[in-house]
Amino acid sequence: MNLQVERNDAVAVVTLNRPDALNALDTATKVALRDTLRELADDPKVRAVVLAGAGRAFCVGQDLREHVALLATDDPAPLSTVREHYNPVAELIVGMPKPVIAAVRGMAAGAGASLALLADFRVGGPGTKFLMAFANVGLAGDTGVSWTLPRLIGHAKATELLMLAEPVDAATADRLGMLSTLVEDDEQVLPTALALAARLAAGPTVAYAQIKRQLATGGSAGLSETLEVEADAQATCGRTTDHQAATAAFVQKQKPVFNGA
Amino acid sequence: MNLQVERNDAVAVVTLNRPDALNALDTATKVALRDTLRELADDPKVRAVVLAGAGRAFCVGQDLREHVALLATDDPAPLSTVREHYNPVAELIVGMPKPVIAAVRGMAAGAGASLALLADFRVGGPGTKFLMAFANVGLAGDTGVSWTLPRLIGHAKATELLMLAEPVDAATADRLGMLSTLVEDDEQVLPTALALAARLAAGPTVAYAQIKRQLATGGSAGLSETLEVEADAQATCGRTTDHQAATAAFVQKQKPVFNGA
Amino acid sequence: MNLQVERNDAVAVVTLNRPDALNALDTATKVALRDTLRELADDPKVRAVVLAGAGRAFCVGQDLREHVALLATDDPAPLSTVREHYNPVAELIVGMPKPVIAAVRGMAAGAGASLALLADFRVGGPGTKFLMAFANVGLAGDTGVSWTLPRLIGHAKATELLMLAEPVDAATADRLGMLSTLVEDDEQVLPTALALAARLAAGPTVAYAQIKRQLATGGSAGLSETLEVEADAQATCGRTTDHQAATAAFVQKQKPVFNGA
Repeated sequence: MNLQVERNDAVAVVTLNRPDALNALDTATKVALRDTLRELADDPKVRAVVLAGAGRAFCVGQDLREHVALLATDDPAPLSTVREHYNPVAELIVGMPKPVIAAVRGMAAGAGASLALLADFRVGGPGTKFLMAFANVGLAGDTGVSWTLPRLIGHAKATELLMLAEPVDAATADRLGMLSTLVEDDEQVLPTALALAARLAAGPTVAYAQIKRQLATGGSAGLSETLEVEADAQATCGRTTDHQAATAAFVQKQKPVFNGA
Repeated sequence: MNLQVERNDAVAVVTLNRPDALNALDTATKVALRDTLRELADDPKVRAVVLAGAGRAFCVGQDLREHVALLATDDPAPLSTVREHYNPVAELIVGMPKPVIAAVRGMAAGAGASLALLADFRVGGPGTKFLMAFANVGLAGDTGVSWTLPRLIGHAKATELLMLAEPVDAATADRLGMLSTLVEDDEQVLPTALALAARLAAGPTVAYAQIKRQLATGGSAGLSETLEVEADAQATCGRTTDHQAATAAFVQKQKPVFNGA
Repeated sequence: MNLQVERNDAVAVVTLNRPDALNALDTATKVALRDTLRELADDPKVRAVVLAGAGRAFCVGQDLREHVALLATDDPAPLSTVREHYNPVAELIVGMPKPVIAAVRGMAAGAGASLALLADFRVGGPGTKFLMAFANVGLAGDTGVSWTLPRLIGHAKATELLMLAEPVDAATADRLGMLSTLVEDDEQVLPTALALAARLAAGPTVAYAQIKRQLATGGSAGLSETLEVEADAQATCGRTTDHQAATAAFVQKQKPVFNGA
């Protein structure tokens, strides 16, 4: 299987599983990823999602061999994959009503880098590398990278990374704000991501979903529009059992327990 | 009085004054804050505003005891406070046509952190802490935090602070860009804020108002829309006595004097 | 000539050439800059543009002596220069379908700072200084500074620089993200900018143009709108000879050669 999905209690671990191709995204993998994300979004038992890659890379992006083969055929639109696969994947990760954590071990290149940048958290290790490889094959960015990158590292650095298309090592990525956590050993990347996912899966899932929605709006929209979303989000959270139990616990100086609804 | 308002020449100092409750925002305080900000916005004699908290905290946000009591009644919408109080306060600080400086001594939590983040400048000391406490009681952000936070520290850090809801100490806040100035002694936080306010109150108030308006647009809108606001803003400033006197002073190599109009 | 334009192969070097006035922008210079940028945008032989200043400053912005003279006449709108000159220049640099590199040697003040900030890359040296001088003469920002600055350094720092209007030295500018590259010797600023321009002029020009367009959208718009632009941009790039040759080269493990179309 090109894509593995495991459940550990409320955490779903989605692993790109073409290690011999450094998890390059061929059509089958992209379809599986898109459809899996849709299922996980809709499954209330899943309260956090981890994205990982099997083997020594996270994901090197588009499978260029498959792409070149498509370019050589009569296929009218080899880049129709953007609308069919990459855009839905981007919408699904940003719109996922629960936290998404990328365990970025090794190289994340092209659409593989974009995937990692769409997550709410990125855990990296000393071997983590990002490469906005698009321009190296005469392309602009995709899979949401022109939305995530300026929000994470600013417009100028985003321009630089996309135009110069040079690898960014782990320390630089961390300094620029591309990593949430940089661990000391690559072997700790996945365990650290899983621990963070477990912690978040025991949290107020509705509040996390609303925080994601608020920030997706607030980073782009004007103040008034953002405040409307905030009011609606707090009303939604205010109706949850989680909120009512947690405020009661707070007043009684007890630790809250969240059931995710 | 839950809210103290003092005038030092053209500087208004607004102090949240419930020190025994760490300046938690109960309904009376929120109403007073909202109505006071509206008055200060409209008062041409006020050319800078300082927000401060009495005692050892800046503000711990929503008064949760009052909130829990409301949740226990028939009140249909305990979170209607967002639309009634928090959103107007956010609009009033961002729209305030003069600089607002937050003197963030001690803890700024929940809506108290949001208040500080809405200001144009934040002065902190070694005891300053920010805590995006919302998720700890099963809530998303409010009081504009989903608009200010990504603009100050980027989308990823904003996600982290809102989801993990852990305290951010002064040095980290400074490094992330949540503080404009970090002074060495907590006793210097308020005097430093007052000195900055006095300086700004002697500046070109109309220009400051237009700078606030430009950045509120420019950080969200497309280039063309922003350029329209810039043209309109410069035309507004160009009609002020301050501009005409200052350019004349510049050409004569004299120091400008601004009267705020 | 107030403005020099030189061509080195596919690189156009545009030099503000009023060194005795520190390259202050009088009407003739602004008209020449605007019209030159329009020509360069439309010229397919030009694949990268360098902006530089003759002498010891990059550009000190608006020529205030001319401005004061205009204020003293019956001219109904001395600040009509924003709509006539500064806004078109801003649109032309951001919309320029090829990379723009600013060689910021010495002072960049007012609209001169804004010009530098509009470029895709900024090379500075130890003598580089930025001064958002507008408020010192009672003005708000122009020439796109309220769009670029929050995207480069965040909303709070942008507020601080525009309101306090104090010079920012090279090291601070670099730390804040206002410089792409800080070289050790001011004499190396222009050669470094030219080398970067030569490198970019040998790259996939259509992809660079689409990256600029993507980021101009992505930093402001919502995710869905940005993803539409990404899909369209990749389709545009996918039809270029550059893309097809580069992917073929990639599969054959050869170095790509880009002709810019």
